[in-house]
Amino acid sequence: MKTITKDPLVIGGHTFSSRFILGSGKFNMDLIEAAIEHAKAEIITLALRRANTEKNDNILNHIPKGVTLLPNTSGARNAEEAVRIARLAREIGCGNFIKIEVIRDSKYLLPDNYETIKATEILAKEGFVVMPYMYPDLNVARDLWNAGAACVMPLGAPIGSNKGLCTKEFIQILIDEIELPIIVDAGIGKPSEACAAMEMGAAAIMANTAIATAGNIIEMAHAFRLSVEAGRAAYLAGPGRVLNMQGEASSPLTGFLEEAK
Amino acid sequence: MKTITKDPLVIGGHTFSSRFILGSGKFNMDLIEAAIEHAKAEIITLALRRANTEKNDNILNHIPKGVTLLPNTSGARNAEEAVRIARLAREIGCGNFIKIEVIRDSKYLLPDNYETIKATEILAKEGFVVMPYMYPDLNVARDLWNAGAACVMPLGAPIGSNKGLCTKEFIQILIDEIELPIIVDAGIGKPSEACAAMEMGAAAIMANTAIATAGNIIEMAHAFRLSVEAGRAAYLAGPGRVLNMQGEASSPLTGFLEEAK
Amino acid sequence: MKTITKDPLVIGGHTFSSRFILGSGKFNMDLIEAAIEHAKAEIITLALRRANTEKNDNILNHIPKGVTLLPNTSGARNAEEAVRIARLAREIGCGNFIKIEVIRDSKYLLPDNYETIKATEILAKEGFVVMPYMYPDLNVARDLWNAGAACVMPLGAPIGSNKGLCTKEFIQILIDEIELPIIVDAGIGKPSEACAAMEMGAAAIMANTAIATAGNIIEMAHAFRLSVEAGRAAYLAGPGRVLNMQGEASSPLTGFLEEAK
Amino acid sequence: MKTITKDPLVIGGHTFSSRFILGSGKFNMDLIEAAIEHAKAEIITLALRRANTEKNDNILNHIPKGVTLLPNTSGARNAEEAVRIARLAREIGCGNFIKIEVIRDSKYLLPDNYETIKATEILAKEGFVVMPYMYPDLNVARDLWNAGAACVMPLGAPIGSNKGLCTKEFIQILIDEIELPIIVDAGIGKPSEACAAMEMGAAAIMANTAIATAGNIIEMAHAFRLSVEAGRAAYLAGPGRVLNMQGEASSPLTGFLEEAK
Repeated sequence: MKTITKDPLVIGGHTFSSRFILGSGKFNMDLIEAAIEHAKAEIITLALRRANTEKNDNILNHIPKGVTLLPNTSGARNAEEAVRIARLAREIGCGNFIKIEVIRDSKYLLPDNYETIKATEILAKEGFVVMPYMYPDLNVARDLWNAGAACVMPLGAPIGSNKGLCTKEFIQILIDEIELPIIVDAGIGKPSEACAAMEMGAAAIMANTAIATAGNIIEMAHAFRLSVEAGRAAYLAGPGRVLNMQGEASSPLTGFLEEAK
Repeated sequence: MKTITKDPLVIGGHTFSSRFILGSGKFNMDLIEAAIEHAKAEIITLALRRANTEKNDNILNHIPKGVTLLPNTSGARNAEEAVRIARLAREIGCGNFIKIEVIRDSKYLLPDNYETIKATEILAKEGFVVMPYMYPDLNVARDLWNAGAACVMPLGAPIGSNKGLCTKEFIQILIDEIELPIIVDAGIGKPSEACAAMEMGAAAIMANTAIATAGNIIEMAHAFRLSVEAGRAAYLAGPGRVLNMQGEASSPLTGFLEEAK
Repeated sequence: MKTITKDPLVIGGHTFSSRFILGSGKFNMDLIEAAIEHAKAEIITLALRRANTEKNDNILNHIPKGVTLLPNTSGARNAEEAVRIARLAREIGCGNFIKIEVIRDSKYLLPDNYETIKATEILAKEGFVVMPYMYPDLNVARDLWNAGAACVMPLGAPIGSNKGLCTKEFIQILIDEIELPIIVDAGIGKPSEACAAMEMGAAAIMANTAIATAGNIIEMAHAFRLSVEAGRAAYLAGPGRVLNMQGEASSPLTGFLEEAK
Repeated sequence: MKTITKDPLVIGGHTFSSRFILGSGKFNMDLIEAAIEHAKAEIITLALRRANTEKNDNILNHIPKGVTLLPNTSGARNAEEAVRIARLAREIGCGNFIKIEVIRDSKYLLPDNYETIKATEILAKEGFVVMPYMYPDLNVARDLWNAGAACVMPLGAPIGSNKGLCTKEFIQILIDEIELPIIVDAGIGKPSEACAAMEMGAAAIMANTAIATAGNIIEMAHAFRLSVEAGRAAYLAGPGRVLNMQGEASSPLTGFLEEAK
């Protein structure tokens, strides 16, 4: 009998068993460790500013062993600034992974796709595992792929909005056309939305605000972990057909009463 | 630190740790045991016809110990027929739980709410734990409550359609107004939809077709189990706020580059 | 060449060219006449209480000639009260049309389908043109049809909510199965929603709150009229096919540049 | 009393009373005139290839006087080709309006935003009224504005798909942030979707496939005209508030029966 599939996520040659990436930006320091534990995340983002302070509550002290750090270029307004931040991150010991965020719009925090392509090209050549945050535009995703990105990270809705999968149709196109992991990275507000993205074939989900603004952070981290696993299992299982509208009996409806008489 | 909540489901005085109810109508006999194992279901429905045959593949032989049988009145076209089936089920040893299904529409298989109320009233007085399948009408749910139902089981979409939570707004009203477990019982086609119903406050989910028509039944049963747990945990955690549209920085955006110069 | 179709609405043997029914409950007296003019409504509801006052601002003085009055049984909590109000309405000269509203739920104002069936049966026998407001339940719609209703008036969402067509899938079932005009009667908040209901095959739309709470009542009445006409024309025209996702060139894409060289 | 607003559309200094733009790519020659008449379109697109043939059925012979021609650069795969087509169109007498379409993806026909910006910049300097078709990315819309575009034309869904307003949230951002007319230009499949886009504040709608693939082209052209007018009127009127879920009585519910006793 078939059993549950082992199905690792591979990014830039590295293998992960978790498909949930936790953002650290909005957590209190003392909750991060617990959130990671309950979300079972193996990758955690961090903004460089949080990493390089001298204070005792340096976030790096709260990251469990075995978790991969994913510094982001938060604050960069163009490719040049993003590149500079990425290099700094590597210098101070954050490793080779880098999440490119280039944002020139301070209201909706939407990524600048073209500066992102430029930064990706430079950093991929320097040996980084480049994970670019992007607006889900197929042409841009192709360019990022060609530029050496290790995955693409399209947004579901504006960062921090918890609005869900507003870009659903276009993320599906990326999943169907781009042979890189597609990681949905902003806007996911509820576990059911993470699950739906995974059912479509997304390779992983990243969330921060949805958990950080929940009533109980630990319980919500746990919920996200389960929902991402559920969505992946459903994708692998292959969902059943949807009827147009008519119902179809699950149970044998006819005959029983006649026989029972 | 807070930990994950233990949160049992109570129906008619009985306590369950699983919030996923598996329908058995569409499964091949040899897959039922495995599906129950991977869905971790503690309640499984069965149509009487499947239970009372003399053949060796009697479904009762495939139900693991400790699982509660929920015979349904599938085939009943009015209250009288439903009552008759329920009594038969008890006589042949299926226990006190009964799922009322009264269906006079053979195309969409929509429940007849008023015959369902009548059957509920009679059977509740006879000591059954009555779980009525119903069209999500608030007035009817109140009547079922008054008639002694142990829960109400509104449909999300027509039986077997896998169309999802088409009645969302009205199921939310039931959840808000009726002090009985609200168990979403038909139409759920994907784990993300089960998760969304649980996030709204549904007490449990029942599915059959979604799993039976999946490419890999075992994997999909597993996916449903996880998604129902995820949705419950998210409901208990309390989801974060949704911004109207504007984004909000997860990471500290400002200042970094200036300092880094 | 085909021209625009003349396509009257027939209710209880009466013919109307407008498919927009205006509710009068929430309007200021001096705006009703103008709203009717701009909505081109030929049927206008009124609560009996508004009709039977002795004051100078009696709403009947504001209804233009040629408009059919549709008194409703607003305030009725059961069939008996609804029947009483209907008879009163006829006595004081409001004519044979009656909209049945039986509501026992004061929070969501959802109709009591079964009391509505009872009232419909009694009043149809007394020669009324009975237009019942109902929760969109197929079995109930069949019963109303058998009871002599002239149409059925399912809700889109709770009265006054402006939430739109939350019951879409089930209204479609009524349209497909019931050979009476299906008039969507509560919850429609925007012209696009009225248009969508008409595209599905609804026979008419009734609105009140959507117009009464608009910034400019006259302009919104005009908008509703146009959108209902648009939706009907689209239904008659037969909408084009929807592609699954891929695009398809509207313009001839290939070859041009080669030739132009 | 307030009356219906006169509210012209201004593009590149030209004034139009219609807010519906008709695409000509998919029509049979003999239907174009009638479609224009019933859609009341004042702007009609045409692919250059259709305009420059020598045959008797040249589309230009079918365009009524007073209608503005909008040649598109269909077939262009980059900025250079688009510029070349635009210049050709002006040379052969198609006027100053040009719709930029640069498409390098032949499956979904999604626009190449960056080549579109380049072409816009060049052609705006040459005195064209540049109307760029684009993927609804706020940063790109800002760049098109700076490059001299007369409007922006974001897609609702892939060209010819009739899938509707899949990019709704992001088109709303363009409407709120960009001080140019926002014209929704692909994917609109039904009048209700056109109406919804106009209610949001879109300046105009362009459609082709939705009409060309309808059962009755004339009637559907008429439906689109009405729905676009309805949506504009609703936008100007200002829609009413949406209640969270609870209903609110339109008619005075209380007291009547007590008085009537």
